[in-house]
Amino acid sequence: MEDWKSTYRLLTHCKHFFHRRLSPNFDNSKPFCTSGSRYHCSQPSELVKPYIGNYQQEFQTFKHLPVSLGTNPWNTCRNQYRCFASQATIIQRRPDFSTISSEDLSYFKNILGERGVVQDEETLDAVNTDWMRKYKGTSKLMLQPRTAEEVSQILKYCNSRCLAVVPQGGNTGLVGGSVPAFDEVIVSTSHMNKIISFDKVSGILVCEAGCILENLIAFLDNQGFVMPLDLGAKGSCQIGGNVSTNAGGLRLLRYGSLHGSVLGLEVVLANGTVLDMLGTLRKDNTGYDLKHLFIGSEGSLGIVTKVSIFTPPKLSSVNVCFLACKDYASCLKLLLEAKRKLGEILSAFEFLDHGAMDLVLKHLEGVRNPFPSSMHNFYVLIETTGSSESYDREKLDAFLLHSMENDLISDGVVAQDITQASSCWHIREGIPEALMKAGGVYKYDLSIPVEKMYDLVEEMGVRLGASAKVVAYGHLGDGNLHLNISTPQYDDKILSQIEPFVYEWTSKHKGSISAEHGLGLMKANKIHYTKSPENVQLMANIKKLLDPNGILNPYKVLPPSLFTKN
Amino acid sequence: MEDWKSTYRLLTHCKHFFHRRLSPNFDNSKPFCTSGSRYHCSQPSELVKPYIGNYQQEFQTFKHLPVSLGTNPWNTCRNQYRCFASQATIIQRRPDFSTISSEDLSYFKNILGERGVVQDEETLDAVNTDWMRKYKGTSKLMLQPRTAEEVSQILKYCNSRCLAVVPQGGNTGLVGGSVPAFDEVIVSTSHMNKIISFDKVSGILVCEAGCILENLIAFLDNQGFVMPLDLGAKGSCQIGGNVSTNAGGLRLLRYGSLHGSVLGLEVVLANGTVLDMLGTLRKDNTGYDLKHLFIGSEGSLGIVTKVSIFTPPKLSSVNVCFLACKDYASCLKLLLEAKRKLGEILSAFEFLDHGAMDLVLKHLEGVRNPFPSSMHNFYVLIETTGSSESYDREKLDAFLLHSMENDLISDGVVAQDITQASSCWHIREGIPEALMKAGGVYKYDLSIPVEKMYDLVEEMGVRLGASAKVVAYGHLGDGNLHLNISTPQYDDKILSQIEPFVYEWTSKHKGSISAEHGLGLMKANKIHYTKSPENVQLMANIKKLLDPNGILNPYKVLPPSLFTKN
Repeated sequence: MEDWKSTYRLLTHCKHFFHRRLSPNFDNSKPFCTSGSRYHCSQPSELVKPYIGNYQQEFQTFKHLPVSLGTNPWNTCRNQYRCFASQATIIQRRPDFSTISSEDLSYFKNILGERGVVQDEETLDAVNTDWMRKYKGTSKLMLQPRTAEEVSQILKYCNSRCLAVVPQGGNTGLVGGSVPAFDEVIVSTSHMNKIISFDKVSGILVCEAGCILENLIAFLDNQGFVMPLDLGAKGSCQIGGNVSTNAGGLRLLRYGSLHGSVLGLEVVLANGTVLDMLGTLRKDNTGYDLKHLFIGSEGSLGIVTKVSIFTPPKLSSVNVCFLACKDYASCLKLLLEAKRKLGEILSAFEFLDHGAMDLVLKHLEGVRNPFPSSMHNFYVLIETTGSSESYDREKLDAFLLHSMENDLISDGVVAQDITQASSCWHIREGIPEALMKAGGVYKYDLSIPVEKMYDLVEEMGVRLGASAKVVAYGHLGDGNLHLNISTPQYDDKILSQIEPFVYEWTSKHKGSISAEHGLGLMKANKIHYTKSPENVQLMANIKKLLDPNGILNPYKVLPPSLFTKN
Repeated sequence: MEDWKSTYRLLTHCKHFFHRRLSPNFDNSKPFCTSGSRYHCSQPSELVKPYIGNYQQEFQTFKHLPVSLGTNPWNTCRNQYRCFASQATIIQRRPDFSTISSEDLSYFKNILGERGVVQDEETLDAVNTDWMRKYKGTSKLMLQPRTAEEVSQILKYCNSRCLAVVPQGGNTGLVGGSVPAFDEVIVSTSHMNKIISFDKVSGILVCEAGCILENLIAFLDNQGFVMPLDLGAKGSCQIGGNVSTNAGGLRLLRYGSLHGSVLGLEVVLANGTVLDMLGTLRKDNTGYDLKHLFIGSEGSLGIVTKVSIFTPPKLSSVNVCFLACKDYASCLKLLLEAKRKLGEILSAFEFLDHGAMDLVLKHLEGVRNPFPSSMHNFYVLIETTGSSESYDREKLDAFLLHSMENDLISDGVVAQDITQASSCWHIREGIPEALMKAGGVYKYDLSIPVEKMYDLVEEMGVRLGASAKVVAYGHLGDGNLHLNISTPQYDDKILSQIEPFVYEWTSKHKGSISAEHGLGLMKANKIHYTKSPENVQLMANIKKLLDPNGILNPYKVLPPSLFTKN
């Protein structure tokens, strides 16, 4: 260690070489893993293509049979189901919802034409199923409107007929929010995919809800701007869905949440009202800012049809380094130092623990340990994005030197080019795939105050002992922990040791049981772990105000019991 | 001009001298104006002390006499009133509101003690009057709760008694939102002024609503962080009021709006429910994000009692330059270049036109023209904030050189120290004072897409001819125009030429009639210029849901006619 530090100090006098070899352990002649580059939009997205290859047998699909038929789906499909879920959600189809009639079909064909009314089985099978193949509905109808006016006509009609509706964008959600629970009409936003305007002075983009995120990123890249949002699922997810789920992703640390970036929305309410909130102003203090109600409400209050979003200018200089830390306290100190020393150029601060790295090295092909001579307890990926390569690199160097002098870093490498930067990212982004390959995995997406975050991982480790491997990674800069419990096979005994402990612990420490994925169907009944009864009741009242018949994305987000008619 | 450019090019080889003298017209031996420094928290704030000195006679106060007495306050006080307002708001006291009884006073004293129940005339006179002395209520009672629980007891009681309430923070608002319209009970947040916690790793501050912004700025400065919000009124305004009005201010360009920065709120609803949304997480996607309803609703949906806010680390390097442009198109091109070339360090981009500079030079003592040899059509103030002085200065130099080579700048100075930087800011911030000294002034705070923004100023100039001077300045980087029409004296004929033209023009160009000041009492009836009927109706429905008796800040934000009982 000391030797390496001396080497580092020496090398700082030769900037070029320093960037080629921060760590003596790093052989710069070969990239240390061989993934595609996350800086290329054409890369197949992790979330777009489910890991169905050899694992397809495990991932058998599941039909939510109406409980009125006397079938408890959780019991029926217990073995097939638990490979994904911590616990299945048992719900009953609302008996007051209508079913599709031939008159309904005629009406929709009259509005949308034959092409906008999809009934073929193959397509319906795909859009009934979420990307994890965890949730599967039984909808017999998908509608593909092309304008907000068409969405308005659909919803007005469905509302009058009490036909339940599930809005669907790219269907990349992770909590069962974008597929029908039963036979809801699927209203797809995919055919509303035009970019409406872009203002190069203000950086404000206006587009339709069905624009695929990756297309927007590419469009803006050509204009010299960036989307303030980037996700693994960018190749399929749509901006309307991103907004409706308040997607977090990789740029939140730098550009903040969509509540800050989204300037305006057009939303169609359950009764067909087109709510024009499509402002293109950074400042507008005239009345209540209603658009925020729809950001993150998962399509349960209205269907987003257009989005106006503020986009920052593209910055040319990107640096990535991959560092090793001896303990979690060092990771936290490093985060504080990074915020201070890198300041305005810090764009990502991700972490993974020993267990996560171990899994990646074992299960992902082509990944090489950046520090082959020894394993470390923690690893941190830091990205900077700025407008000047030389200045940014010098800032990064100064930060690294200071961090080493203060014993915050045990080892480290700085990527020299896009390929190496992508390789660093691939280690971090490859963890979910490695976990899936390792066996059963119980996954939790939590927000926890950073000081306490790793305590949960350690407590869970003690709790589970040798029966499971507790693995942690996530967006440390945002306080977002991805807690994963890896087991050779799924086991109800282990599950009962994890839940409700994990939710109770998170609640006790004022965390959130869903940092960025939403509640959807999976956690609609678990909202009380994060939100007080008064909060939940007010949410329910707002839902009733905007959607009195409850036709929009029913059974999701809020506990269905709140809407049971007496 | 050409000579000066040659000089500039020469000087760029000598960085030190360049920063001492960008323009040959700038004598660096004396600061060009002699104001206090905006970088010192101790500076008396512009908004805190109304300009009442010699102008007190003009600013006679006005009592909203109940229309039920048969008096039309606009007619009665016509001459005294119009020196502030574009048009008075004529409203009628809601007859269903109760008046304070001795039993009410006993109840409040029982909850709050004698000290928390203020009835002395002098204090009441101050809190009934807004800082412009434009609006004056007739409240006989101010309550000073110390906890959310006390606020809860107050509101629960007022709701049951149908006693109207006006929440009041620092009372620095500009639209009559923070003072009673009639005899509403004033609920002051001033005694809830504790900092509850600050997390140095995450940068998250939690404090009570009555904390004065300047105190928070000073506290964070000591911790090495900054508030993402800065205002002229910081010496008096309170964070609860800032949040309730979605205050914009000087740092919005860099750190975005409070919808992005505020992480959590504690709010007391009209019925006394304490709504705990005081999260300290950057990511939380569990249910609807209700806090946004209260950000910018001007106290009409609930009283904010605690705030959790994300604060970025303090950056050490600040540069300010003051530039001259030949036309508005050059200002826009300069803005685009600044966003690109300065990127992540750009923290302010303010502009003023020839008329604004002329007024400042004529009416503000101690201000000196940075370019004494000639006047220019437009001036731009650019501030950068970063973590490295030398790098930031080099970035700024490169930007300035490029801008000159492309004829975007006609002249310019770069501040060498804090005093000169403050002097630059003083020109920009001194405009309101200069306008007040020049005579009558009709003031409009508008958001307009930047390409169109100055068209309004020019059209207004043509429209008014020689009868008035049309002056423009504002936060160009945010698309926020402060349009001011300066006249030797107030004149109804001029007013009728300005309004409703200014609102109609703004509406036609998809702007906002209130960029950052809110609607308050002044513009409650003008919301339709910016928001559609569907939007306004939904706002009214939400108001009715949260405050069925309409006791919270009545007559404000939304047209009172929406709440008239049939």
